[in-house]
Amino acid sequence: MIMDKEAPIGVFDSGVGGLTVAREIMKNLPMEKIIYFGDTARVPYGSKSKDTVLRYSRQIIRFLRTQGVKAIVVACNTASALALDVIEQEIDIPIIGVVKAGARVAATTTTNRKVGVIATESTIQSKMYQDYISTIDPQITVFGKGCPLLVPLVEEGWTEDDVTKKVVERYLQELKEEEIDTLILGCTHYPLLSKIVGEVMGSGVKLVNPAYETAVELEALLAQRGMKSEVCASGEFPYRFFVSDAANKFTEFAQSILPVEMPKAHQINIEEY
Amino acid sequence: MIMDKEAPIGVFDSGVGGLTVAREIMKNLPMEKIIYFGDTARVPYGSKSKDTVLRYSRQIIRFLRTQGVKAIVVACNTASALALDVIEQEIDIPIIGVVKAGARVAATTTTNRKVGVIATESTIQSKMYQDYISTIDPQITVFGKGCPLLVPLVEEGWTEDDVTKKVVERYLQELKEEEIDTLILGCTHYPLLSKIVGEVMGSGVKLVNPAYETAVELEALLAQRGMKSEVCASGEFPYRFFVSDAANKFTEFAQSILPVEMPKAHQINIEEY
Repeated sequence: MIMDKEAPIGVFDSGVGGLTVAREIMKNLPMEKIIYFGDTARVPYGSKSKDTVLRYSRQIIRFLRTQGVKAIVVACNTASALALDVIEQEIDIPIIGVVKAGARVAATTTTNRKVGVIATESTIQSKMYQDYISTIDPQITVFGKGCPLLVPLVEEGWTEDDVTKKVVERYLQELKEEEIDTLILGCTHYPLLSKIVGEVMGSGVKLVNPAYETAVELEALLAQRGMKSEVCASGEFPYRFFVSDAANKFTEFAQSILPVEMPKAHQINIEEY
Repeated sequence: MIMDKEAPIGVFDSGVGGLTVAREIMKNLPMEKIIYFGDTARVPYGSKSKDTVLRYSRQIIRFLRTQGVKAIVVACNTASALALDVIEQEIDIPIIGVVKAGARVAATTTTNRKVGVIATESTIQSKMYQDYISTIDPQITVFGKGCPLLVPLVEEGWTEDDVTKKVVERYLQELKEEEIDTLILGCTHYPLLSKIVGEVMGSGVKLVNPAYETAVELEALLAQRGMKSEVCASGEFPYRFFVSDAANKFTEFAQSILPVEMPKAHQINIEEY
Protein backbone atom coordinates (compact mmCIF):
# COMPACT_ATOMS: atom_id res chain seq x y z
CA MET A 1 0.00 0.00 0.00
CA ILE A 2 1.44 3.37 -1.02
CA MET A 3 0.66 6.08 1.50
CA ASP A 4 0.94 9.79 0.95
CA LYS A 5 3.89 11.06 3.01
CA GLU A 6 2.12 14.35 3.50
CA ALA A 7 -0.99 12.73 4.99
CA PRO A 8 -1.66 13.63 8.64
CA ILE A 9 -0.95 11.61 11.79
CA GLY A 10 -4.12 10.58 13.66
CA VAL A 11 -3.86 11.05 17.43
CA PHE A 12 -6.64 10.08 19.83
CA ASP A 13 -7.42 10.10 23.51
CA SER A 14 -10.46 9.79 25.77
CA GLY A 15 -10.38 13.57 26.23
CA VAL A 16 -7.90 16.40 26.67
CA GLY A 17 -5.05 14.41 28.24
CA GLY A 18 -3.68 13.21 24.90
CA LEU A 19 -2.88 16.80 24.02
CA THR A 20 0.34 16.31 26.01
CA VAL A 21 1.24 13.71 23.36
CA ALA A 22 0.15 15.95 20.46
CA ARG A 23 2.30 18.70 21.99
CA GLU A 24 5.40 16.48 21.94
CA ILE A 25 4.73 15.53 18.30
CA MET A 26 4.37 19.22 17.37
CA LYS A 27 7.67 20.06 19.11
CA ASN A 28 9.66 17.09 17.82
CA LEU A 29 8.13 16.45 14.35
CA PRO A 30 7.25 19.96 13.21
CA MET A 31 6.70 18.93 9.56
CA GLU A 32 3.87 16.51 10.40
CA LYS A 33 0.20 17.37 10.21
CA ILE A 34 -2.06 16.11 13.01
CA ILE A 35 -5.73 15.15 13.23
CA TYR A 36 -6.61 14.94 16.93
CA PHE A 37 -9.74 13.30 18.31
CA GLY A 38 -10.78 13.62 21.97
CA ASP A 39 -13.72 11.47 23.09
CA THR A 40 -15.05 14.11 25.49
CA ALA A 41 -18.60 12.69 25.41
CA ARG A 42 -17.45 9.40 26.91
CA VAL A 43 -14.43 10.44 28.99
CA PRO A 44 -12.97 8.91 31.16
CA TYR A 45 -11.96 5.49 29.84
CA GLY A 46 -10.02 4.56 33.00
CA SER A 47 -13.00 3.02 34.78
CA LYS A 48 -14.45 1.22 31.73
CA SER A 49 -14.17 -2.42 30.67
CA LYS A 50 -11.91 -3.82 27.97
CA ASP A 51 -14.84 -4.55 25.62
CA THR A 52 -16.17 -1.02 25.86
CA VAL A 53 -12.75 0.62 25.40
CA LEU A 54 -12.17 -1.63 22.38
CA ARG A 55 -15.53 -0.70 20.82
CA TYR A 56 -14.88 3.01 21.39
CA SER A 57 -11.35 2.75 19.95
CA ARG A 58 -12.63 1.03 16.79
CA GLN A 59 -15.21 3.79 16.26
CA ILE A 60 -12.51 6.45 16.60
CA ILE A 61 -10.16 4.67 14.21
CA ARG A 62 -12.99 4.43 11.64
CA PHE A 63 -13.45 8.19 12.01
CA LEU A 64 -9.71 8.92 11.70
CA ARG A 65 -9.51 6.79 8.53
CA THR A 66 -12.16 9.02 6.95
CA GLN A 67 -9.63 11.85 7.46
CA GLY A 68 -6.97 10.01 5.46
CA VAL A 69 -4.39 9.55 8.22
CA LYS A 70 -1.13 7.71 7.40
CA ALA A 71 -0.47 6.48 10.95
CA ILE A 72 -2.26 6.44 14.32
CA VAL A 73 -1.00 7.30 17.79
CA VAL A 74 -3.09 5.98 20.68
CA ALA A 75 -2.43 8.81 23.13
CA CYS A 76 -4.63 7.28 25.82
CA ASN A 77 -2.94 4.93 28.27
CA THR A 78 -6.14 2.99 28.94
CA ALA A 79 -6.85 2.41 25.25
CA SER A 80 -3.18 1.55 24.63
CA ALA A 81 -3.29 -0.95 27.45
CA LEU A 82 -6.66 -2.53 26.69
CA ALA A 83 -7.19 -2.22 22.93
CA LEU A 84 -3.91 -1.75 21.02
CA ASP A 85 -2.92 -5.42 20.75
CA VAL A 86 -6.24 -6.28 19.12
CA ILE A 87 -6.52 -3.21 16.92
CA GLU A 88 -3.06 -3.44 15.42
CA GLN A 89 -4.12 -6.78 13.89
CA GLU A 90 -7.11 -5.13 12.24
CA ILE A 91 -5.60 -2.21 10.31
CA ASP A 92 -3.07 -1.77 7.53
CA ILE A 93 -1.39 1.48 8.65
CA PRO A 94 1.15 1.84 11.47
CA ILE A 95 -0.31 2.30 14.94
CA ILE A 96 1.61 2.95 18.16
CA GLY A 97 0.58 3.63 21.74
CA VAL A 98 1.98 5.43 24.72
CA VAL A 99 2.36 2.29 26.84
CA LYS A 100 5.05 0.50 24.81
CA ALA A 101 7.10 3.66 24.36
CA GLY A 102 7.04 4.43 28.09
CA ALA A 103 7.78 0.84 29.06
CA ARG A 104 10.84 0.58 26.81
CA VAL A 105 12.43 3.75 28.14
CA ALA A 106 11.74 2.81 31.76
CA ALA A 107 13.39 -0.58 31.21
CA THR A 108 16.59 1.04 29.93
CA THR A 109 16.56 3.81 32.58
CA THR A 110 16.35 1.77 35.80
CA THR A 111 19.61 0.64 37.38
CA ASN A 112 18.24 -1.18 40.47
CA ARG A 113 15.57 -2.92 38.34
CA LYS A 114 12.68 -1.55 40.40
CA VAL A 115 10.22 0.45 38.32
CA GLY A 116 7.01 2.11 39.50
CA VAL A 117 3.96 2.97 37.37
CA ILE A 118 1.17 5.37 38.34
CA ALA A 119 -1.95 5.33 36.16
CA THR A 120 -5.71 4.81 36.18
CA GLU A 121 -7.09 1.64 37.77
CA SER A 122 -7.77 0.00 34.38
CA THR A 123 -4.24 0.56 33.14
CA ILE A 124 -2.76 -0.88 36.35
CA GLN A 125 -5.11 -3.87 36.37
CA SER A 126 -4.30 -4.66 32.73
CA LYS A 127 -0.65 -5.19 33.84
CA MET A 128 0.34 -4.04 30.35
CA TYR A 129 3.33 -1.97 31.54
CA GLN A 130 4.51 -4.95 33.57
CA ASP A 131 4.11 -7.29 30.60
CA TYR A 132 6.03 -5.11 28.14
CA ILE A 133 8.82 -4.44 30.61
CA SER A 134 9.14 -8.17 31.36
CA THR A 135 9.62 -8.99 27.67
CA ILE A 136 12.57 -6.55 27.63
CA ASP A 137 14.14 -7.56 30.96
CA PRO A 138 12.45 -10.26 33.06
CA GLN A 139 14.65 -9.27 36.05
CA ILE A 140 12.84 -5.95 36.46
CA THR A 141 10.12 -5.79 39.12
CA VAL A 142 7.29 -3.40 38.31
CA PHE A 143 5.17 -1.86 41.08
CA GLY A 144 1.84 -0.43 39.87
CA LYS A 145 -0.42 2.00 41.72
CA GLY A 146 -3.83 3.21 40.56
CA CYS A 147 -4.38 6.92 41.30
CA PRO A 148 -8.01 7.71 40.36
CA LEU A 149 -8.06 11.17 42.00
CA LEU A 150 -5.18 12.67 40.03
CA VAL A 151 -7.05 13.32 36.77
CA PRO A 152 -9.91 15.19 38.51
CA LEU A 153 -7.32 17.20 40.50
CA VAL A 154 -5.52 18.24 37.28
CA GLU A 155 -8.83 19.09 35.61
CA GLU A 156 -9.76 21.21 38.66
CA GLY A 157 -6.51 23.10 38.03
CA TRP A 158 -5.03 22.17 41.43
CA THR A 159 -1.65 21.19 39.93
CA GLU A 160 0.41 23.01 42.58
CA ASP A 161 -1.66 22.63 45.69
CA ASP A 162 -1.35 21.31 49.25
CA VAL A 163 -4.33 18.99 48.87
CA THR A 164 -2.90 17.52 45.66
CA LYS A 165 0.46 17.03 47.36
CA LYS A 166 -1.22 15.16 50.25
CA VAL A 167 -3.08 12.91 47.78
CA VAL A 168 0.12 12.27 45.79
CA GLU A 169 2.04 11.50 49.01
CA ARG A 170 -0.58 8.95 50.01
CA TYR A 171 -0.67 7.28 46.59
CA LEU A 172 3.14 7.16 46.28
CA GLN A 173 3.92 5.93 49.80
CA GLU A 174 4.04 2.22 48.83
CA LEU A 175 6.21 2.93 45.80
CA LYS A 176 8.71 4.82 47.97
CA GLU A 177 8.84 1.89 50.39
CA GLU A 178 9.70 -0.40 47.47
CA GLU A 179 12.70 1.85 46.69
CA ILE A 180 11.98 2.20 42.97
CA ASP A 181 14.50 4.32 41.01
CA THR A 182 12.26 4.98 37.97
CA LEU A 183 8.63 6.06 37.85
CA ILE A 184 6.43 6.00 34.74
CA LEU A 185 3.78 8.76 34.58
CA GLY A 186 1.30 6.30 33.07
CA CYS A 187 -1.59 8.67 32.36
CA THR A 188 -1.48 11.56 29.93
CA HIS A 189 -2.59 14.08 32.57
CA TYR A 190 0.24 13.24 34.94
CA PRO A 191 3.08 15.17 33.22
CA LEU A 192 1.18 18.26 34.43
CA LEU A 193 1.86 17.02 38.00
CA SER A 194 5.53 16.20 37.45
CA LYS A 195 6.70 18.99 39.80
CA ILE A 196 4.76 17.62 42.79
CA VAL A 197 5.53 14.00 41.91
CA GLY A 198 9.23 14.86 41.64
CA GLU A 199 9.18 16.59 45.05
CA VAL A 200 7.43 13.65 46.70
CA MET A 201 9.69 10.98 45.17
CA GLY A 202 12.96 12.94 45.54
CA SER A 203 15.80 13.46 43.10
CA GLY A 204 16.93 9.82 43.21
CA VAL A 205 13.90 8.70 41.19
CA LYS A 206 13.78 9.37 37.43
CA LEU A 207 10.37 10.23 35.96
CA VAL A 208 9.48 8.78 32.54
CA ASN A 209 7.03 10.78 30.41
CA PRO A 210 5.53 8.41 27.80
CA ALA A 211 4.20 11.37 25.78
CA TYR A 212 7.73 12.44 24.88
CA GLU A 213 8.91 8.88 24.29
CA THR A 214 5.98 8.25 21.96
CA ALA A 215 6.95 11.20 19.76
CA VAL A 216 10.49 9.81 19.57
CA GLU A 217 9.18 6.35 18.62
CA LEU A 218 6.82 7.81 16.03
CA GLU A 219 9.68 9.63 14.34
CA ALA A 220 11.78 6.45 14.17
CA LEU A 221 8.86 4.45 12.77
CA LEU A 222 8.05 6.98 10.05
CA ALA A 223 11.73 7.25 9.08
CA GLN A 224 12.10 3.47 8.88
CA ARG A 225 9.09 3.15 6.57
CA GLY A 226 9.97 6.17 4.41
CA MET A 227 6.82 7.92 5.55
CA LYS A 228 8.16 11.14 7.06
CA SER A 229 6.67 14.34 5.74
CA GLU A 230 9.22 16.25 3.63
CA VAL A 231 7.48 19.57 3.15
CA CYS A 232 5.92 22.11 5.45
CA ALA A 233 2.20 22.39 4.91
CA SER A 234 1.62 25.73 3.23
CA GLY A 235 -1.59 27.65 2.95
CA GLU A 236 -3.37 25.57 5.54
CA PHE A 237 -3.22 25.10 9.29
CA PRO A 238 -1.50 21.76 9.96
CA TYR A 239 -3.49 20.74 13.05
CA ARG A 240 -7.19 19.88 13.24
CA PHE A 241 -9.10 18.95 16.38
CA PHE A 242 -12.30 16.92 16.70
CA VAL A 243 -14.23 16.04 19.84
CA SER A 244 -17.44 14.17 20.67
CA ASP A 245 -18.72 16.88 23.04
CA ALA A 246 -18.13 20.37 24.48
CA ALA A 247 -15.89 21.75 21.73
CA ASN A 248 -15.50 25.19 23.35
CA LYS A 249 -14.27 23.87 26.67
CA PHE A 250 -11.84 21.58 24.82
CA THR A 251 -10.55 24.44 22.69
CA GLU A 252 -9.85 26.57 25.78
CA PHE A 253 -7.98 23.82 27.60
CA ALA A 254 -6.03 22.90 24.44
CA GLN A 255 -5.01 26.51 23.92
CA SER A 256 -3.63 26.64 27.47
CA ILE A 257 -1.21 23.75 26.94
CA LEU A 258 -0.31 23.77 23.23
CA PRO A 259 2.61 25.78 21.82
CA VAL A 260 0.58 27.04 18.83
CA GLU A 261 -2.49 29.17 18.23
CA MET A 262 -5.24 26.70 17.49
CA PRO A 263 -8.52 26.78 15.58
CA LYS A 264 -11.81 25.85 17.24
CA ALA A 265 -12.37 22.11 17.64
CA HIS A 266 -15.19 20.49 15.61
CA GLN A 267 -17.81 18.37 17.34
CA ILE A 268 -18.85 15.07 15.70
CA ASN A 269 -21.18 12.24 16.77
CA ILE A 270 -18.70 9.41 17.28
CA GLU A 271 -21.46 6.84 17.81
CA GLU A 272 -22.19 7.04 14.07
CA TYR A 273 -18.80 5.55 13.15
CA MET B 1 -54.04 5.54 28.49
CA ILE B 2 -54.59 2.75 31.03
CA MET B 3 -51.40 1.73 32.73
CA ASP B 4 -50.85 -1.44 34.71
CA LYS B 5 -50.54 -0.46 38.39
CA GLU B 6 -48.18 -3.37 38.92
CA ALA B 7 -45.79 -2.22 36.19
CA PRO B 8 -42.31 -1.23 37.45
CA ILE B 9 -40.89 2.25 38.05
CA GLY B 10 -37.97 3.12 35.74
CA VAL B 11 -35.07 4.82 37.53
CA PHE B 12 -31.96 6.00 35.74
CA ASP B 13 -28.66 7.69 36.46
CA SER B 14 -25.31 8.21 34.76
CA GLY B 15 -23.87 5.48 36.99
CA VAL B 16 -24.08 4.20 40.55
CA GLY B 17 -25.06 7.46 42.26
CA GLY B 18 -28.77 7.07 41.49
CA LEU B 19 -28.82 3.98 43.68
CA THR B 20 -29.24 6.40 46.62
CA VAL B 21 -32.57 7.34 45.01
CA ALA B 22 -33.53 3.70 44.29
CA ARG B 23 -32.74 2.97 47.94
CA GLU B 24 -35.18 5.63 49.15
CA ILE B 25 -37.90 4.27 46.83
CA MET B 26 -37.31 0.74 48.16
CA LYS B 27 -37.57 1.97 51.76
CA ASN B 28 -40.57 4.25 51.29
CA LEU B 29 -42.57 2.47 48.54
CA PRO B 30 -41.89 -1.20 49.29
CA MET B 31 -44.71 -2.46 47.02
CA GLU B 32 -43.21 -0.93 43.88
CA LYS B 33 -41.04 -2.82 41.40
CA ILE B 34 -37.99 -1.01 40.01
CA ILE B 35 -36.05 -1.23 36.74
CA TYR B 36 -32.75 0.63 37.29
CA PHE B 37 -30.43 1.71 34.49
CA GLY B 38 -26.92 3.06 35.17
CA ASP B 39 -25.04 4.49 32.17
CA THR B 40 -21.67 3.25 33.40
CA ALA B 41 -20.15 3.27 29.88
CA ARG B 42 -20.62 7.04 29.57
CA VAL B 43 -20.40 8.20 33.20
CA PRO B 44 -19.99 10.99 34.32
CA TYR B 45 -22.61 13.33 32.82
CA GLY B 46 -21.54 16.31 34.96
CA SER B 47 -18.96 17.60 32.50
CA LYS B 48 -21.02 17.00 29.34
CA SER B 49 -23.08 19.43 27.25
CA LYS B 50 -26.84 19.80 27.28
CA ASP B 51 -27.23 18.26 23.79
CA THR B 52 -25.24 15.18 24.72
CA VAL B 53 -27.03 14.66 28.05
CA LEU B 54 -30.36 15.03 26.23
CA ARG B 55 -29.40 12.46 23.57
CA TYR B 56 -28.23 10.01 26.23
CA SER B 57 -31.40 10.51 28.30
CA ARG B 58 -33.63 9.83 25.28
CA GLN B 59 -31.78 6.59 24.54
CA ILE B 60 -32.23 5.46 28.15
CA ILE B 61 -35.93 6.31 28.16
CA ARG B 62 -36.41 4.30 24.95
CA PHE B 63 -34.73 1.37 26.70
CA LEU B 64 -36.85 1.75 29.87
CA ARG B 65 -40.05 1.84 27.75
CA THR B 66 -39.10 -1.57 26.33
CA GLN B 67 -39.28 -2.80 29.95
CA GLY B 68 -42.88 -1.60 30.32
CA VAL B 69 -42.33 1.01 33.05
CA LYS B 70 -45.34 2.99 34.31
CA ALA B 71 -43.32 6.06 35.42
CA ILE B 72 -39.75 7.32 35.23
CA VAL B 73 -37.52 8.84 37.90
CA VAL B 74 -34.51 10.79 36.64
CA ALA B 75 -32.14 10.02 39.50
CA CYS B 76 -29.29 12.00 37.96
CA ASN B 77 -29.05 15.66 38.91
CA THR B 78 -27.30 16.61 35.67
CA ALA B 79 -29.93 14.90 33.49
CA SER B 80 -32.74 16.36 35.65
CA ALA B 81 -31.24 19.82 35.26
CA LEU B 82 -30.40 19.67 31.54
CA ALA B 83 -32.92 17.29 29.97
CA LEU B 84 -36.08 16.89 32.05
CA ASP B 85 -37.94 19.97 30.80
CA VAL B 86 -37.60 18.80 27.19
CA ILE B 87 -38.22 15.11 27.82
CA GLU B 88 -41.41 15.54 29.82
CA GLN B 89 -42.97 17.08 26.70
CA GLU B 90 -42.07 13.99 24.68
CA ILE B 91 -43.53 11.10 26.70
CA ASP B 92 -46.97 10.05 27.89
CA ILE B 93 -46.08 8.56 31.27
CA PRO B 94 -45.22 10.51 34.44
CA ILE B 95 -41.59 11.53 34.80
CA ILE B 96 -40.00 13.28 37.76
CA GLY B 97 -36.46 14.30 38.62
CA VAL B 98 -34.40 14.86 41.72
CA VAL B 99 -33.89 18.58 41.11
CA LYS B 100 -37.52 19.74 41.52
CA ALA B 101 -38.07 17.59 44.61
CA GLY B 102 -34.94 18.94 46.30
CA ALA B 103 -35.70 22.53 45.31
CA ARG B 104 -39.22 22.46 46.74
CA VAL B 105 -38.15 21.11 50.12
CA ALA B 106 -35.26 23.56 50.37
CA ALA B 107 -37.63 26.46 49.66
CA THR B 108 -39.91 25.45 52.52
CA THR B 109 -37.03 24.64 54.91
CA THR B 110 -35.05 27.89 54.82
CA THR B 111 -36.00 30.61 57.29
CA ASN B 112 -33.40 33.27 56.38
CA ARG B 113 -34.06 32.73 52.65
CA LYS B 114 -30.44 31.88 51.88
CA VAL B 115 -30.08 28.45 50.31
CA GLY B 116 -26.86 26.79 49.12
CA VAL B 117 -26.53 24.08 46.46
CA ILE B 118 -23.49 21.86 45.92
CA ALA B 119 -23.42 19.81 42.72
CA THR B 120 -21.45 19.10 39.54
CA GLU B 121 -20.38 22.04 37.38
CA SER B 122 -23.11 21.35 34.77
CA THR B 123 -25.89 21.30 37.35
CA ILE B 124 -24.67 24.58 38.87
CA GLN B 125 -24.23 26.27 35.50
CA SER B 126 -27.73 25.23 34.41
CA LYS B 127 -29.08 27.32 37.34
CA MET B 128 -31.99 24.87 37.46
CA TYR B 129 -32.13 24.74 41.28
CA GLN B 130 -32.12 28.54 41.35
CA ASP B 131 -34.89 28.71 38.74
CA TYR B 132 -37.20 26.24 40.50
CA ILE B 133 -36.67 27.85 43.89
CA SER B 134 -37.40 31.30 42.44
CA THR B 135 -40.74 30.15 41.07
CA ILE B 136 -41.72 29.06 44.60
CA ASP B 137 -40.35 32.11 46.47
CA PRO B 138 -38.59 34.85 44.51
CA GLN B 139 -37.22 36.29 47.78
CA ILE B 140 -34.90 33.32 48.27
CA THR B 141 -31.28 33.81 47.21
CA VAL B 142 -29.58 30.63 45.98
CA PHE B 143 -25.79 30.23 46.15
CA GLY B 144 -24.43 27.45 43.92
CA LYS B 145 -21.00 25.84 44.12
CA GLY B 146 -19.61 23.24 41.71
CA CYS B 147 -17.61 20.51 43.49
CA PRO B 148 -16.05 18.30 40.80
CA LEU B 149 -13.73 16.40 43.17
CA LEU B 150 -16.43 15.03 45.47
CA VAL B 151 -17.68 12.24 43.20
CA PRO B 152 -14.18 10.81 42.62
CA LEU B 153 -13.51 11.04 46.39
CA VAL B 154 -16.68 9.05 47.16
CA GLU B 155 -15.86 6.50 44.47
CA GLU B 156 -12.34 6.15 45.95
CA GLY B 157 -14.09 5.28 49.24
CA TRP B 158 -12.58 8.26 51.11
CA THR B 159 -15.94 9.25 52.65
CA GLU B 160 -14.52 9.82 56.14
CA ASP B 161 -11.07 11.14 55.47
CA ASP B 162 -8.90 14.17 56.29
CA VAL B 163 -8.20 14.92 52.63
CA THR B 164 -11.91 14.83 51.81
CA LYS B 165 -12.64 17.11 54.75
CA LYS B 166 -10.03 19.62 53.49
CA VAL B 167 -11.56 19.56 50.00
CA VAL B 168 -15.08 19.98 51.42
CA GLU B 169 -13.92 22.86 53.64
CA ARG B 170 -12.43 24.64 50.64
CA TYR B 171 -15.51 24.14 48.48
CA LEU B 172 -17.93 25.21 51.23
CA GLN B 173 -16.02 28.28 52.44
CA GLU B 174 -17.96 30.74 50.23
CA LEU B 175 -21.31 29.23 51.19
CA LYS B 176 -20.46 29.62 54.90
CA GLU B 177 -19.56 33.27 54.31
CA GLU B 178 -22.97 33.80 52.72
CA GLU B 179 -24.58 32.48 55.93
CA ILE B 180 -26.95 30.03 54.23
CA ASP B 181 -29.24 28.09 56.59
CA THR B 182 -30.14 25.28 54.14
CA LEU B 183 -27.85 23.26 51.85
CA ILE B 184 -29.04 21.02 49.01
CA LEU B 185 -26.85 17.95 48.38
CA GLY B 186 -27.34 18.38 44.62
CA CYS B 187 -25.54 15.25 43.39
CA THR B 188 -26.61 11.69 44.12
CA HIS B 189 -23.20 10.75 45.54
CA TYR B 190 -23.22 13.51 48.14
CA PRO B 191 -25.56 11.92 50.72
CA LEU B 192 -22.64 9.53 51.30
CA LEU B 193 -20.64 12.60 52.47
CA SER B 194 -23.38 14.06 54.66
CA LYS B 195 -21.41 13.43 57.88
CA ILE B 196 -18.41 15.52 56.73
CA VAL B 197 -20.60 18.17 55.10
CA GLY B 198 -22.64 18.44 58.31
CA GLU B 199 -19.47 18.86 60.41
CA VAL B 200 -18.10 21.54 58.11
CA MET B 201 -21.35 23.53 57.89
CA GLY B 202 -22.31 23.15 61.57
CA SER B 203 -25.63 22.29 63.17
CA GLY B 204 -27.27 25.59 62.16
CA VAL B 205 -27.46 24.51 58.52
CA LYS B 206 -30.07 21.96 57.43
CA LEU B 207 -29.04 19.48 54.74
CA VAL B 208 -31.60 18.56 52.05
CA ASN B 209 -31.26 15.12 50.46
CA PRO B 210 -33.12 15.18 47.11
CA ALA B 211 -33.05 11.36 46.92
CA TYR B 212 -35.42 11.08 49.87
CA GLU B 213 -37.60 13.98 48.71
CA THR B 214 -37.94 12.36 45.28
CA ALA B 215 -39.30 9.14 46.79
CA VAL B 216 -41.85 11.21 48.73
CA GLU B 217 -42.88 13.09 45.55
CA LEU B 218 -43.12 9.85 43.58
CA GLU B 219 -45.47 8.36 46.15
CA ALA B 220 -47.74 11.42 46.04
CA LEU B 221 -47.77 11.42 42.24
CA LEU B 222 -48.66 7.72 41.97
CA ALA B 223 -51.40 8.09 44.60
CA GLN B 224 -52.88 11.11 42.83
CA ARG B 225 -53.07 9.24 39.52
CA GLY B 226 -54.35 5.97 41.01
CA MET B 227 -51.17 4.24 39.91
CA LYS B 228 -49.79 2.85 43.18
CA SER B 229 -49.02 -0.83 43.23
CA GLU B 230 -51.51 -2.71 45.44
CA VAL B 231 -49.91 -6.12 45.67
CA CYS B 232 -46.51 -7.40 46.64
CA ALA B 233 -44.72 -8.99 43.73
CA SER B 234 -44.72 -12.72 44.41
CA GLY B 235 -42.58 -15.37 42.82
CA GLU B 236 -40.20 -12.87 41.28
CA PHE B 237 -37.53 -10.47 42.50
CA PRO B 238 -38.96 -6.94 42.32
CA TYR B 239 -35.77 -5.11 41.35
CA ARG B 240 -33.80 -5.44 38.12
CA PHE B 241 -30.59 -3.62 37.27
CA PHE B 242 -29.16 -2.78 33.84
CA VAL B 243 -25.90 -1.00 33.02
CA SER B 244 -24.03 -0.04 29.86
CA ASP B 245 -20.66 -1.34 31.16
CA ALA B 246 -18.85 -3.19 33.95
CA ALA B 247 -21.82 -5.06 35.43
CA ASN B 248 -19.76 -6.84 38.11
CA LYS B 249 -18.28 -3.67 39.56
CA PHE B 250 -21.75 -2.09 39.58
CA THR B 251 -23.28 -5.10 41.32
CA GLU B 252 -20.64 -4.98 44.07
CA PHE B 253 -21.12 -1.27 44.72
CA ALA B 254 -24.91 -1.61 44.62
CA GLN B 255 -24.81 -4.46 47.12
CA SER B 256 -22.81 -2.29 49.51
CA ILE B 257 -25.43 0.47 49.67
CA LEU B 258 -28.80 -1.23 49.05
CA PRO B 259 -30.92 -2.68 51.86
CA VAL B 260 -31.75 -5.87 49.88
CA GLU B 261 -29.86 -8.80 48.42
CA MET B 262 -29.60 -8.06 44.74
CA PRO B 263 -29.21 -10.10 41.56
CA LYS B 264 -26.36 -9.47 39.13
CA ALA B 265 -26.85 -6.44 36.87
CA HIS B 266 -27.32 -7.05 33.13
CA GLN B 267 -25.16 -5.25 30.60
CA ILE B 268 -26.81 -3.79 27.47
CA ASN B 269 -25.52 -1.69 24.57
CA ILE B 270 -27.35 1.58 25.19
CA GLU B 271 -26.16 3.09 21.89
CA GLU B 272 -28.58 0.75 20.10
CA TYR B 273 -31.64 2.45 21.60
